[in-house]
Amino acid sequence: MTIEGTLDPACGLDEGIKALAHPVRRAILAKLREPERYFAAQAQPLSLGVCAGQIEQSCPLSQSSISAHLAALQAAGLISGRRVGPYVFFKRDDEAIERLLALLRAALDQPACNSEPVQSS
Amino acid sequence: MTIEGTLDPACGLDEGIKALAHPVRRAILAKLREPERYFAAQAQPLSLGVCAGQIEQSCPLSQSSISAHLAALQAAGLISGRRVGPYVFFKRDDEAIERLLALLRAALDQPACNSEPVQSS
Repeated sequence: MTIEGTLDPACGLDEGIKALAHPVRRAILAKLREPERYFAAQAQPLSLGVCAGQIEQSCPLSQSSISAHLAALQAAGLISGRRVGPYVFFKRDDEAIERLLALLRAALDQPACNSEPVQSS
Repeated sequence: MTIEGTLDPACGLDEGIKALAHPVRRAILAKLREPERYFAAQAQPLSLGVCAGQIEQSCPLSQSSISAHLAALQAAGLISGRRVGPYVFFKRDDEAIERLLALLRAALDQPACNSEPVQSS
């Protein structure tokens, strides 16, 4: 008996968990859960999502750091980005987050679940 | 409003999540959940835990790689190790894993939860 099939580097579960392993990325996801509470100052409608600039202003980090964190969250499928003119608006993908947490729990219960893809694409 | 207090490098939540970000570590945790199923060949009583050698035999990786994975899981508090003579026996810490998953969920819901320690020590 071996742990075969668990070393796929393209595994979405790995990428998703890694995306959650940084406190700033978790805090961004938590704030995007309640845009009205945390980004009420945004000029554009929050129905579009939250502008990258607003997220940057809410963090004591450089713009490039926040951009990298947003890119990691987007690559893991945990947020979606939408360009409108000069702005990019981000939304938390609740379904993807729930799917990731469910897959994580399954992977901790069943060895065979450790190569399941998280993203449907 | 800033994401203050979320950059503590000693944060147990970060360490715990990072420990779960590798498929081999998740597979080890999953197998340690059912020692009777996955390590029935062990000569010593499974009540002691699962011997490092048994875990190594169940994985298509070098002994040093598995040792490093076990060390990472132990450092994160997700398994406990007990030396008996020449052997080290490992047990999964179900309570610590449940605590970690609960803290992860809280951290994705509330920005302020991203600096909570996972381990009680």
